[in-house]
Amino acid sequence: MGEENGRAAGPTEMRWNGWGDPAREKPLPRAVRVLLPMLLGRIRRPEDPVELHEVRVDPTALDVEDLSALGAVVGVEHVDVTPEARIRHSGGRSTPDLLRTRLRDQSVPDAVVSPGSHDQVAAVLRLAASRQIAVIPYGGGTSVVGALTPERGEHRAVVSLDLRRLSGLIRIDEISAEAVLAAGTTGPDAEALLTAHGYELGHYPQSFRYATIGGFAAARSSGQNSAGHGRFDAMVTGIRVATPTGDLELGRAPGSAAGPDLVRVFLGSEGIFGVITEVRVRIHPVPRDRLVESWTFPDFASGVDGLRRVAQHGGGPTVVRLSDEAETAVSLAQVGRIGKAFAKGAGVVTVYEGDGIPERRARTAALIAAAGGTPSGESAAEEWVDGRFDGPYLRDALLDAGVFCETLETATTWSNLLALRTAVTTALSAGFAHAGARSHVLCHVSHIYPTGASLYFTVLAGIRSDPLGVWDQVKARANDAILAAGGTISHHHGVGRDHVPWLAQEIGDTGMRILGAIKRELDPAGILNPGALIPSERRS
Amino acid sequence: MGEENGRAAGPTEMRWNGWGDPAREKPLPRAVRVLLPMLLGRIRRPEDPVELHEVRVDPTALDVEDLSALGAVVGVEHVDVTPEARIRHSGGRSTPDLLRTRLRDQSVPDAVVSPGSHDQVAAVLRLAASRQIAVIPYGGGTSVVGALTPERGEHRAVVSLDLRRLSGLIRIDEISAEAVLAAGTTGPDAEALLTAHGYELGHYPQSFRYATIGGFAAARSSGQNSAGHGRFDAMVTGIRVATPTGDLELGRAPGSAAGPDLVRVFLGSEGIFGVITEVRVRIHPVPRDRLVESWTFPDFASGVDGLRRVAQHGGGPTVVRLSDEAETAVSLAQVGRIGKAFAKGAGVVTVYEGDGIPERRARTAALIAAAGGTPSGESAAEEWVDGRFDGPYLRDALLDAGVFCETLETATTWSNLLALRTAVTTALSAGFAHAGARSHVLCHVSHIYPTGASLYFTVLAGIRSDPLGVWDQVKARANDAILAAGGTISHHHGVGRDHVPWLAQEIGDTGMRILGAIKRELDPAGILNPGALIPSERRS
Repeated sequence: MGEENGRAAGPTEMRWNGWGDPAREKPLPRAVRVLLPMLLGRIRRPEDPVELHEVRVDPTALDVEDLSALGAVVGVEHVDVTPEARIRHSGGRSTPDLLRTRLRDQSVPDAVVSPGSHDQVAAVLRLAASRQIAVIPYGGGTSVVGALTPERGEHRAVVSLDLRRLSGLIRIDEISAEAVLAAGTTGPDAEALLTAHGYELGHYPQSFRYATIGGFAAARSSGQNSAGHGRFDAMVTGIRVATPTGDLELGRAPGSAAGPDLVRVFLGSEGIFGVITEVRVRIHPVPRDRLVESWTFPDFASGVDGLRRVAQHGGGPTVVRLSDEAETAVSLAQVGRIGKAFAKGAGVVTVYEGDGIPERRARTAALIAAAGGTPSGESAAEEWVDGRFDGPYLRDALLDAGVFCETLETATTWSNLLALRTAVTTALSAGFAHAGARSHVLCHVSHIYPTGASLYFTVLAGIRSDPLGVWDQVKARANDAILAAGGTISHHHGVGRDHVPWLAQEIGDTGMRILGAIKRELDPAGILNPGALIPSERRS
Repeated sequence: MGEENGRAAGPTEMRWNGWGDPAREKPLPRAVRVLLPMLLGRIRRPEDPVELHEVRVDPTALDVEDLSALGAVVGVEHVDVTPEARIRHSGGRSTPDLLRTRLRDQSVPDAVVSPGSHDQVAAVLRLAASRQIAVIPYGGGTSVVGALTPERGEHRAVVSLDLRRLSGLIRIDEISAEAVLAAGTTGPDAEALLTAHGYELGHYPQSFRYATIGGFAAARSSGQNSAGHGRFDAMVTGIRVATPTGDLELGRAPGSAAGPDLVRVFLGSEGIFGVITEVRVRIHPVPRDRLVESWTFPDFASGVDGLRRVAQHGGGPTVVRLSDEAETAVSLAQVGRIGKAFAKGAGVVTVYEGDGIPERRARTAALIAAAGGTPSGESAAEEWVDGRFDGPYLRDALLDAGVFCETLETATTWSNLLALRTAVTTALSAGFAHAGARSHVLCHVSHIYPTGASLYFTVLAGIRSDPLGVWDQVKARANDAILAAGGTISHHHGVGRDHVPWLAQEIGDTGMRILGAIKRELDPAGILNPGALIPSERRS
């Protein structure tokens, strides 16, 4: 459990116009290069991306008084108005975000402000409210739903509030199996700090190497080990929050009926109500044992039936993941097994960590076999484990090769899962076809619950021109299809700005009024992440 | 799994001035009668309680127009202004509520209104808002925190909204293991409806025989099987809510990151934001197997250590419950084993239901033994199972005998559990001593989590006069001690009116502002349960 969990972190700063650590970039596997024209037809290589120094940005809208007031709170060295810092904080890592980094003219925040304590965060928020400056909370910068777009709203200026100086293990309570982490602690740093005490958090989303504990909380993250340890929601036992109008310490006891659980008001609030500065989380001993095993189902439908049995029984694997036939084929191609790529079947990866693995494995194996699954050794599962944080590197290589690649996800009940998958796949394919683009849609289930599961789609497309415009239309069709077919607009990517119209459909007008009422109470000036979750025009 | 789970329900209407079904009333066990004077000194028998027909109530404040408007919505036969109906809906079942039923003059709602559908609930709320009539949502009438006190607030009148006509299984999805129940369905009715399909909900709080599904949700109930199936919070996958200003359907998918989980805004809201009319819950197959086993620890502290190990390991019993030395002694006395009553030790009850019992039992036994527990057969556990819904009958018998008896509860982390218990026990004993009353405090742990557990206190006292006044002061001391020692003001009883000042301390001013903002948005006229959760003077 060392490097494979990313505990040796890459550099803190990601590649500015792509994913992660440049040293980990990989060319497209040869087999994928062979496969792509078969799937998508002829691909046109895009123009070379612009260099960082070629990007043109507006001068900062902050005046000397603003900068000196901000500097007085956080220290002048922690108010950065250089173009590089502003460009690096101008968005997340959705494919549209990455395509925008290829443009010469970019929209960026007016400064990057890096507070060093909870009190500094609170002071920055009060200051920003009084000076009409919008604030975009920034953790790992890994949003894929436009949560970091530097939208000013009605304000004079907008700053990115980089929270990564709030880093570290504040407290650990080994008896209660709880730890308090500063919100800006990255995934690898959190795990390294806990491992020193013999514990782990065990939250490994694909963004793990860069994302922060506060970001996991604010965006309702879900990690690869969710079958074993639950969503991040389920790990959070308390939070400390700074808002423009007051602080909160929430989550007093592990079971409480003291009114509604206000922790949950902030989990998923994506920085529109306040800034989470500390997170108390459930921890568990670093697992000593691990077992990985692959399975193959004749088709996706029987695989879904198998995963349902596993989820409803409980006490099974730590990780479970079912790829549909298309994803199974591409995964095999990726690791060079092009010969097997078109074999029929839906592959399953299972990973067991912790205690009682033989019993858990035996129970799970029986349930999977009863649903028609057959064991297929360890290698596919090992390969998935080895590459499990590397998907975004592959996307960079595809984009460089001129292949549009993006992901989207949803969730629904078990009884509705196949219908939802069909609806979304059809909407995606039809959308690309309408734009004259060939596409290929892959799907997997990677988060299971007793009552339902997630669906995660990867789309590959050969878009001849205006990929941003084409995707905007295709994504809108897919989102419409998700809601029409009973899915949620997001299982774990969140809402950001990209999903706002669909959030309003999902929770209805009365639900949006609840969000608006909390927003007006805590952030009456509306400075926090304007346009995220709540459409700007709805504010008052 | 028949009668012992209360599936054969008692009459819908409880005894008006005590708990439950008069046919189940029991005299005090002889051994308890022997024990009481030893613990509390001489007890004075109270005056005989008043009869229902002797109670004096004010005439209804509703005028003919109000009644005809309400009747037009729900049917005139469902608007009841008889003194009996109004008296029966005038409070819950806390000991103060029961002591108040012994008074000749009582404060009661102006009518009992029983809607028959979601739309009727919504229409009643709109009507009430327009006519300045406060509305107290009423499920099983089992609140022990003053959530049903007919407080008018600033309004002309107050009605009790009895939701029990909203009863039944609306939908079952066996593939997804989910069911939608009407909010007024009682615990036994819900289980009977699900059992017909081979499923159970598995939520058995002590109020089970009378409380409703909507009440479980609105008050964040926790049942005896919480070690196996979690709190009611964890069972709810969706809700339908009527508010005075709009409806909500929340909980679209089993995992979602579509903004904050608004279901959680209503779980624990105790009817101040809206009325829950339907609840979607996770269900599971009726367990075929059951095993019960008792254990004894040398003392409460080692028992807490044992339960912590069980909770942090997971996959153990369905029910686990540790009594302190005092409660263990009284429990033994209750079943006539007075000789053993003063034996040292802290008793544990474990119940396993469902699959894999031998493994789960073996794992749990090893953890308990490692902490110093020794097996003590099945009988104590069987006795607990047999009497597990009967505690409130015992209280009635104690009150009739002149012994004050009440319960209170809290929760905290494992590392703080013993200190919190000491603080609360000390505050209770000191409070009674200050009032010149001898008292005896029993404690148990009955809900365990990886990071902490609940503490449930039963107090017995010989109060010579003004028990309501004495308890008010003692309870305030205990609540102060709970907060000062890091506990939550409620693990599962809720807030109601009794805990309001302490809720404000627990969640702070900013937390109260969040509740107030949601309240003003959804219920601008402030008709819903005035004075519960939010102090009346805080409304505007």
